[in-house]
Amino acid sequence: MTKPVVGIIMGSQSDWPTMSEAAKVLEDLNVAYEKRIVSAHRTPDRLWDYGRKAVNRGLQVIIAGAGGAAHLPGMMASKTRVPVVGVPIQTKALGGVDSLYSIVQMPRGFPVATMAIGAAGAVNAGLMAAGILALQDAALAERLEAWRNALSASIPEAPEDV
Amino acid sequence: MTKPVVGIIMGSQSDWPTMSEAAKVLEDLNVAYEKRIVSAHRTPDRLWDYGRKAVNRGLQVIIAGAGGAAHLPGMMASKTRVPVVGVPIQTKALGGVDSLYSIVQMPRGFPVATMAIGAAGAVNAGLMAAGILALQDAALAERLEAWRNALSASIPEAPEDV
Amino acid sequence: MTKPVVGIIMGSQSDWPTMSEAAKVLEDLNVAYEKRIVSAHRTPDRLWDYGRKAVNRGLQVIIAGAGGAAHLPGMMASKTRVPVVGVPIQTKALGGVDSLYSIVQMPRGFPVATMAIGAAGAVNAGLMAAGILALQDAALAERLEAWRNALSASIPEAPEDV
Amino acid sequence: MTKPVVGIIMGSQSDWPTMSEAAKVLEDLNVAYEKRIVSAHRTPDRLWDYGRKAVNRGLQVIIAGAGGAAHLPGMMASKTRVPVVGVPIQTKALGGVDSLYSIVQMPRGFPVATMAIGAAGAVNAGLMAAGILALQDAALAERLEAWRNALSASIPEAPEDV
Amino acid sequence: MTKPVVGIIMGSQSDWPTMSEAAKVLEDLNVAYEKRIVSAHRTPDRLWDYGRKAVNRGLQVIIAGAGGAAHLPGMMASKTRVPVVGVPIQTKALGGVDSLYSIVQMPRGFPVATMAIGAAGAVNAGLMAAGILALQDAALAERLEAWRNALSASIPEAPEDV
Amino acid sequence: MTKPVVGIIMGSQSDWPTMSEAAKVLEDLNVAYEKRIVSAHRTPDRLWDYGRKAVNRGLQVIIAGAGGAAHLPGMMASKTRVPVVGVPIQTKALGGVDSLYSIVQMPRGFPVATMAIGAAGAVNAGLMAAGILALQDAALAERLEAWRNALSASIPEAPEDV
Amino acid sequence: MTKPVVGIIMGSQSDWPTMSEAAKVLEDLNVAYEKRIVSAHRTPDRLWDYGRKAVNRGLQVIIAGAGGAAHLPGMMASKTRVPVVGVPIQTKALGGVDSLYSIVQMPRGFPVATMAIGAAGAVNAGLMAAGILALQDAALAERLEAWRNALSASIPEAPEDV
Amino acid sequence: MTKPVVGIIMGSQSDWPTMSEAAKVLEDLNVAYEKRIVSAHRTPDRLWDYGRKAVNRGLQVIIAGAGGAAHLPGMMASKTRVPVVGVPIQTKALGGVDSLYSIVQMPRGFPVATMAIGAAGAVNAGLMAAGILALQDAALAERLEAWRNALSASIPEAPEDV
Repeated sequence: MTKPVVGIIMGSQSDWPTMSEAAKVLEDLNVAYEKRIVSAHRTPDRLWDYGRKAVNRGLQVIIAGAGGAAHLPGMMASKTRVPVVGVPIQTKALGGVDSLYSIVQMPRGFPVATMAIGAAGAVNAGLMAAGILALQDAALAERLEAWRNALSASIPEAPEDV
Repeated sequence: MTKPVVGIIMGSQSDWPTMSEAAKVLEDLNVAYEKRIVSAHRTPDRLWDYGRKAVNRGLQVIIAGAGGAAHLPGMMASKTRVPVVGVPIQTKALGGVDSLYSIVQMPRGFPVATMAIGAAGAVNAGLMAAGILALQDAALAERLEAWRNALSASIPEAPEDV
Repeated sequence: MTKPVVGIIMGSQSDWPTMSEAAKVLEDLNVAYEKRIVSAHRTPDRLWDYGRKAVNRGLQVIIAGAGGAAHLPGMMASKTRVPVVGVPIQTKALGGVDSLYSIVQMPRGFPVATMAIGAAGAVNAGLMAAGILALQDAALAERLEAWRNALSASIPEAPEDV
Repeated sequence: MTKPVVGIIMGSQSDWPTMSEAAKVLEDLNVAYEKRIVSAHRTPDRLWDYGRKAVNRGLQVIIAGAGGAAHLPGMMASKTRVPVVGVPIQTKALGGVDSLYSIVQMPRGFPVATMAIGAAGAVNAGLMAAGILALQDAALAERLEAWRNALSASIPEAPEDV
Repeated sequence: MTKPVVGIIMGSQSDWPTMSEAAKVLEDLNVAYEKRIVSAHRTPDRLWDYGRKAVNRGLQVIIAGAGGAAHLPGMMASKTRVPVVGVPIQTKALGGVDSLYSIVQMPRGFPVATMAIGAAGAVNAGLMAAGILALQDAALAERLEAWRNALSASIPEAPEDV
Repeated sequence: MTKPVVGIIMGSQSDWPTMSEAAKVLEDLNVAYEKRIVSAHRTPDRLWDYGRKAVNRGLQVIIAGAGGAAHLPGMMASKTRVPVVGVPIQTKALGGVDSLYSIVQMPRGFPVATMAIGAAGAVNAGLMAAGILALQDAALAERLEAWRNALSASIPEAPEDV
Repeated sequence: MTKPVVGIIMGSQSDWPTMSEAAKVLEDLNVAYEKRIVSAHRTPDRLWDYGRKAVNRGLQVIIAGAGGAAHLPGMMASKTRVPVVGVPIQTKALGGVDSLYSIVQMPRGFPVATMAIGAAGAVNAGLMAAGILALQDAALAERLEAWRNALSASIPEAPEDV
Repeated sequence: MTKPVVGIIMGSQSDWPTMSEAAKVLEDLNVAYEKRIVSAHRTPDRLWDYGRKAVNRGLQVIIAGAGGAAHLPGMMASKTRVPVVGVPIQTKALGGVDSLYSIVQMPRGFPVATMAIGAAGAVNAGLMAAGILALQDAALAERLEAWRNALSASIPEAPEDV
């Protein structure tokens, strides 16, 4: 079994329908990942532990999804130098602009690579992770190029009336 | 010397001009407080430590000011049952609406008593702390009522042309 | 029968589905509360009366939910030194950002401990009330710690595909 | 001395530079007014009293300016059937969108005639008051028409390079 | 048949479900009104004509509902000194914040008495019209007071679990 | 003297510092224009007249700048089939988002070609007008291409430390 | 077969339900158009090619619809002097305010004639294209005037209760 | 001389005061970079060229700063699989929320690692680049850890009154 190089973490089970989009991309690209529920507020010590061990466990990218106050990505970025990719989960009252601001407006010192709100953001988180890993993995780079080319090739010339 | 019952914490020295307004109110009301710089991202272990010891150190209220992604109040609320009062610091690009959303939109389980953006919020954080402490301190309750009455009494009948 | 120490008030019957979340938490934690409809605009004298008597009736925390212009929490904070916790109700047109601004942007002198928009905010209002009361009630402090620990313990290690 | 038919009220002295624009318009149109500081939060009883007596004192329109949580216009509308015109004061952090939402998003039953944020809104509050009074005062109607015509006549054909 | 003193105008048939709430209030209060579709953009000459004749036709208040760019209330305010009450219609993409800004942010000279977004705003537009007319109609003033008292009396003491 | 084919109109003298940027571009490109103050609210009949005669006067594009409620571009689009380009003027309280929404959110039937807020939008309004005119004027097309090429050529390879 | 003078382009098939509204208007007005899927990100070379050939292919107006980051209209404006009309597609999380800002806030040099968010904007894009073409096509000008008159004539005098 | 592994690109000279913060961090960490002005709209072919050659030139990360419609980061992400880090430049009218939405709301397929608005975002872009490079450069990883530790160590215990 391959050791995961990407960790997909999220605050709760309810984030999984969104975050599973990141997992699917990684599966498409044959990147080994793990998935964990790590809540910044409900399991802060799990967060601490996950961050502290990330380098030694061989994680190369951490994808963190969170909604509302959305502290998970930023706190993880505080605990490890492993690049953190943040996915703002759409929210009921504010549409996810709360998640977005809470994730992207990080102070100097602790970057979070913020993606679009919702499922598109989760897909792109997987691709960003792959793009980072591809810098040192020529085969993955080829698979990523192929994935991108296939996406482009799938676009028809003109819209169809349905 | 009196043991502090209120802890005023903030992410950086630059928050002090705002947060000192909370300190002034507590001084006016003769409430013992301490002030600390505790950065959620730059000093996460200090945050952990502060939160973990808050109850045993006798803190009754923690006032936390932060700007932008503003994780400090929410993470402190995760680490201790001591009531946390959050002050959103005004920011340059978004005016503080980023700070406000990051502080107020907490998930179930971990409330932060959020105040107004900026100096008015810091003043009110001091008053909220006093109001909480006054529940078990009749003398403070009287001083707080007097402070409120003095504020009301200071309002002139009509505006003056200056 | 126990005398209520927390008053849950709201502007109308339609706020109850949200505000009942606060009530449930207080029941879980065995905190005595009462629930009242107090409309800032439709029953201003009831508001006045409620605020004026709050201290003498033994209320220790007032939880006030309101939507739109949402004057109830702020006006209650003006009438009593009892700590007021505000819950912005989600609204149809603006999602509740109107409720949030109307509740949180209080001027110096009259703090409202503002929670998140909607049901999560109501749950947290109950917990904030409990946290305040726990400062002088060791048994409640223990129940609150247990509630928090149970919440943390309920988080599975990884999300399940459903 | 003429009995005032318009009451200009505001939360604090600092609102006067804005609200004096309403006063100037009323002076231009020879409408008798009074100006008062009535703070919803700091002088709630003054607000109650002002609202309760408004009809009997002969007030025909109340112009209320407020910033931030801005409860003054809405609470006044709750206390009297005299038409209330609200002026959202510009604020430092949020530009006055907080004042605007707090004033305009009133629940059914209690209208506030909301004007633009800031000085233009105050000018228009004066004109709205005059427009209401002109319905039963033919001379004022003529002065108002003249004021409007003069404004229109003051517009040059083309902009000048300065 | 009574001559209408209030004109309810709106940009299109699709605004009627909202604006009919204003009509209902006027019927409750026995105020004579008319309803017209007047589109600022599609029937500008109808708008011109309506505005030009408003005073002579005996209209005392014009209630104008509009959504999106929402020019109707402001253009009507430009054409007549009869007080204009504006109702921002809720919109699909932006929730009605576009309607609100387009109606409320009028330049000096031409006030629009802006109400809340949607149905609550339409109800209040009817009440604002009644409040203005009540200044010169003691019987209507009594009916309005009774309407307000009935609303207040309808509020139960506590919410019911349903 | 050349007959103007572009009309630059604006609500007041204070819009000229912004709108003069459109004029400068038209001068650079040798396009004949006129400039007028046409206020939707203060000079509605001037607006009517301008719109009604636009086709016969030979205007090919109308550039309209306005701030706040900003009804000028949309009302002009209602009165003439000549293409209207709208420039949202920056505003003090809301930054110009009010101007933008009021101009861009036009209902079906009456398009306004909306540009960016402020001076960049005014420059682009001039270029949009030129681009439209260039469709039937080969020499102007060449000048426009040259203007675009010069802009591109002016960009240095790398930023300079100053 | 008539050579198209308007190009309707969009980022994906999912934009067609919105953009087909522009096509319908052009059909109503008998304007020859083509429709293409041109994705700024997925088919950037198609975009390049489309823009480079636009003038020579005889396109007079390009209507570009896009959502979210919405780079298509602006990049097309960068590649050709043919006037580009932009339609912001409504989005799930932010309602389309992201599409709007990404399309309208273009820097000096490259105007995009931005329309309203969603279907109304698409309709108006078709009308703006027709208005531009009508400057050099008297028969189309007549059809456009007729279309506008028919729209105005279709407005009933008063709303019907349904 | 070392071959650059990070490319810092920006739309204009005026972005350099912000983007130079990224350069400073890379210098502190001894990471070889280049800086270029690449405007999505004014020099689209330069963008194309830069993106097409990025992999072969050995670039490992591209940091792209842009304001307003801000198409540069997203278009670069479309042209190369090299990870793109986006920095939203603060803007005058909208504070940078336009830049943020235009950069972060990318469609599936083309991630941009979005940072905070303004200088803090530029600093963090440099750190994100370093974090990515550190995955395959143990010495850089040590320097990055040291930089982070130094930042943390620089935080005093308590704020100073100045």
